[in-house]
Amino acid sequence: MKFCSNCGSTVELRIPAGDSLPRHTCASCGSIHYLNPKIIVGAIPEWEGRVLLCRRAIEPRHGFWTLPAGFMENAETTAQAAARETLEEACARIEVGDMFTLINVPHISQVHIVYRARLLDLDFRPGEESLDVALFAEDEIPWDEIAFRTIALTLRRYFDDRRLGAFDFQVEDLTPPPPAELA
Amino acid sequence: MKFCSNCGSTVELRIPAGDSLPRHTCASCGSIHYLNPKIIVGAIPEWEGRVLLCRRAIEPRHGFWTLPAGFMENAETTAQAAARETLEEACARIEVGDMFTLINVPHISQVHIVYRARLLDLDFRPGEESLDVALFAEDEIPWDEIAFRTIALTLRRYFDDRRLGAFDFQVEDLTPPPPAELA
Repeated sequence: MKFCSNCGSTVELRIPAGDSLPRHTCASCGSIHYLNPKIIVGAIPEWEGRVLLCRRAIEPRHGFWTLPAGFMENAETTAQAAARETLEEACARIEVGDMFTLINVPHISQVHIVYRARLLDLDFRPGEESLDVALFAEDEIPWDEIAFRTIALTLRRYFDDRRLGAFDFQVEDLTPPPPAELA
Repeated sequence: MKFCSNCGSTVELRIPAGDSLPRHTCASCGSIHYLNPKIIVGAIPEWEGRVLLCRRAIEPRHGFWTLPAGFMENAETTAQAAARETLEEACARIEVGDMFTLINVPHISQVHIVYRARLLDLDFRPGEESLDVALFAEDEIPWDEIAFRTIALTLRRYFDDRRLGAFDFQVEDLTPPPPAELA
């Protein structure tokens, strides 16, 4: 951030009165521009024991598989975001179930939330951001081609809990990945 | 948002290629400025059956009582945010427990998350944003003077669950309040 989005003047990083962290501050109009974590919401669409994955048509991780998920928008709920992302990326309709994982990814200032969901029909197809969409049984999951660590972690927890016969909401924190690997 | 924070030119609202919603877009440098929901994180600090509340020294809801809570910062986890806000607003140290409520407030594009927590000692006092800090038993809670609906809802669920002898993570959505009342 270099310019004030309110008045167009240059901003500087300084600690406002009563605050403890440097903020992008405008000396001209006084605006303080806070940067806050973003929420990514997704779903595990289930159909007769299989789960729906999307193969990414965009960067990062072009060509890798993921659950339908994306940035939560203003004026929607987390469950609405899960349903919207599933419709956009897989053209699939779901009934959103319980929240299943909430994973902090502090090194990229994101919080990833994934819901369990029931796929309502088999009329799915790739949306604009997907190359392919398909249902996978547990032993068919392409573990080496999963796009993001939060998605792989969520899928592992999902199959673990399914074996135990009870799904439990889980909160996790991810530490930075080894160099040369994406979050 | 009127100006591009990257180059200082004026921005316009238009739907980018491949998108479905209008975004603040810069015709000069091509930056797209997304606005996303913000996360508020708080804690229910518990001490021998009583909970710690703070009386607000700032607007909105100056003079009303609330749980320690505030905007999550970049580069921290939700649990770290709960501990930091409790330290800032009540100068109190807690051991953060399980996530207890996640409440969507879509009409103000916020997600409120509250953790259960164990107050570690009685050495608390008002921080800069609080007029007063005190412990309340259930029958002492000033229900008519609670600052925010998400906090009142969380406290009611907390005492309900405590009576049942088991705390369950709960996801809720709040609809807009009646006119003349704050969210």
